[in-house]
Amino acid sequence: MKPVLTVVALLLFVLTSGCAQSVVDPTPTVKVVDPLPSWNDGASRQSIIDFVVRVTDPASPDFVPEPERIAVFDNDGTLWSEQPSYFQLFFAMDRVKAMAPDHPEWATQQPYQAVLENDMEALAAAGEHGLLELVMATHGGMTTEEFESVVVEWLATAKHPTTGRPYTEMVYQPMLELLDYLRANGVKTYIVSGGGIEFMRPWTEAVYGIPPEQVVGSSIKTVYEVRDGEPVIVRLPEMNFIDDKEGKPVGIHSHIGRRPIAAFGNSDGDFQMLEWATAGDGARLGVLIHHTDAEREWAYDRDSHIGRLDRGLDEADERGWVVVDMKQDWTAIYPTE
Amino acid sequence: MKPVLTVVALLLFVLTSGCAQSVVDPTPTVKVVDPLPSWNDGASRQSIIDFVVRVTDPASPDFVPEPERIAVFDNDGTLWSEQPSYFQLFFAMDRVKAMAPDHPEWATQQPYQAVLENDMEALAAAGEHGLLELVMATHGGMTTEEFESVVVEWLATAKHPTTGRPYTEMVYQPMLELLDYLRANGVKTYIVSGGGIEFMRPWTEAVYGIPPEQVVGSSIKTVYEVRDGEPVIVRLPEMNFIDDKEGKPVGIHSHIGRRPIAAFGNSDGDFQMLEWATAGDGARLGVLIHHTDAEREWAYDRDSHIGRLDRGLDEADERGWVVVDMKQDWTAIYPTE
Repeated sequence: MKPVLTVVALLLFVLTSGCAQSVVDPTPTVKVVDPLPSWNDGASRQSIIDFVVRVTDPASPDFVPEPERIAVFDNDGTLWSEQPSYFQLFFAMDRVKAMAPDHPEWATQQPYQAVLENDMEALAAAGEHGLLELVMATHGGMTTEEFESVVVEWLATAKHPTTGRPYTEMVYQPMLELLDYLRANGVKTYIVSGGGIEFMRPWTEAVYGIPPEQVVGSSIKTVYEVRDGEPVIVRLPEMNFIDDKEGKPVGIHSHIGRRPIAAFGNSDGDFQMLEWATAGDGARLGVLIHHTDAEREWAYDRDSHIGRLDRGLDEADERGWVVVDMKQDWTAIYPTE
Repeated sequence: MKPVLTVVALLLFVLTSGCAQSVVDPTPTVKVVDPLPSWNDGASRQSIIDFVVRVTDPASPDFVPEPERIAVFDNDGTLWSEQPSYFQLFFAMDRVKAMAPDHPEWATQQPYQAVLENDMEALAAAGEHGLLELVMATHGGMTTEEFESVVVEWLATAKHPTTGRPYTEMVYQPMLELLDYLRANGVKTYIVSGGGIEFMRPWTEAVYGIPPEQVVGSSIKTVYEVRDGEPVIVRLPEMNFIDDKEGKPVGIHSHIGRRPIAAFGNSDGDFQMLEWATAGDGARLGVLIHHTDAEREWAYDRDSHIGRLDRGLDEADERGWVVVDMKQDWTAIYPTE
């Protein structure tokens, strides 16, 4: 039985037993709401709840004062889907198509040609260097405010290539509940993603309840300029920081300056973040979301080119990390289900 | 008359007039505490209070929702003193002396020799390049946790060369009150300093009430490593980011991702930060602390090698920035007075 259900049962017992006679208000409105309704009862759910109780109970030897309750979440594959490729890549591809009229040379120039012809094979052949070129061409060369408008407009209209849904509807309902549950317990929630920090900030508050100042991600260089008397911050076509693998603890340290007590990821790109968070003293929680549900989402791990999870699966047990089985542990994947 | 005093007078009038008959509790404990007791009544104080009322009153056309109430503060010369040189330079000099036994070559090598011989003239002659070398030699080559211990230990024992006080007692009492006053009105307070981010974070929460994640500053590069099974973040002797002048709006954008509605500085190094904050829509507040009190602190502006304030003084009026006259506007400088 779920512990919250136990509490409900106890309350019902008390309220319907003789003790209820002493209650002053004859119609008490005691309600115990399950904070994680989309999580099946099981070891994953229980580990999360046990951790929260340990760090929030003032009588617990593992009690953590509220300002130090920091939890970090990867985004792609942890808070929203990442197949058949990172959503930010679809954004970059849509940008290439929108910008193509001003760039006739792209019709015969890779990786742009591959994008314009929807040739995913040629795009993959362009490799990491090709992808980086796409990002630079589509994410740089404008002010931060212009870029924000472009992202907001894209999210409002773009649809995922296989589900046909808006991308922001492909966030995980159980993780939204988990974010709320942690915050209700005084835990400050941060995103720490390999994705672009400025690609995420315009919408994470509305979608996840995570404000821009709690988003850490990869970034391109920017400069401050005054243009016709108007100060602007201009995005340069040059990488500044890659917030992935060993970069994640560095990004956390730079932005937060405290070691998190809990970390949630889904791929080996999150390994060091979980390692860093869970190596601290006291109660620690490391969670890997394992994509096991080919029917409701996607199933992939060791051999995936996106979100590869290999070392994490091997070492989760010995490191005491929780591996969430999406198929078994989650009653729903997306909020609209 | 201060507006809070006006409120007190009105309350006293009401409570002692016939209206008081209708008060149920015969001994009401109404107290109106002046939130800025170390600020003399005058234009500076009034401008700050007017701004806070405009952005917090839901009926005001300039009302700002709480999450967007961001205020940024320079540190050196704005929250604590910066003469006869930046306190972080004294830290670096003390570190050179502490590390000298392991570096016999420093006895005849500049800028180290100058530090070991307390030769400030030779140190000045080493210029910016020499200072940078000092910082690299004393701030790098250790883990972030080791560096934090060194800073904490230094602050607990070091004394300012002319006042003989601990450095953390040389913070400005009126600014501590201002930080509290803003926070009590739902404004989130950040430090945005040219000083080292890791030099500030260990003590800003205790001294200013500003937690590590709300500190933005200059930084050196760091890398994540696992040493004998223990993950650490190692500080490299290489600059990563200089949070000064045009760098300040860039640092704000990177760490906060929102444009502040208020900015407080004291030198031309803060010019762009004030420009960026006050160019936004709606009510904005830019404040420059002008060091005018040679008796209680230091007096300097256009010709100072530290905290030079020149363009800011020229343009404050036309930009609507408040210039605080430390001698006239502040009844106390340090908390112990």
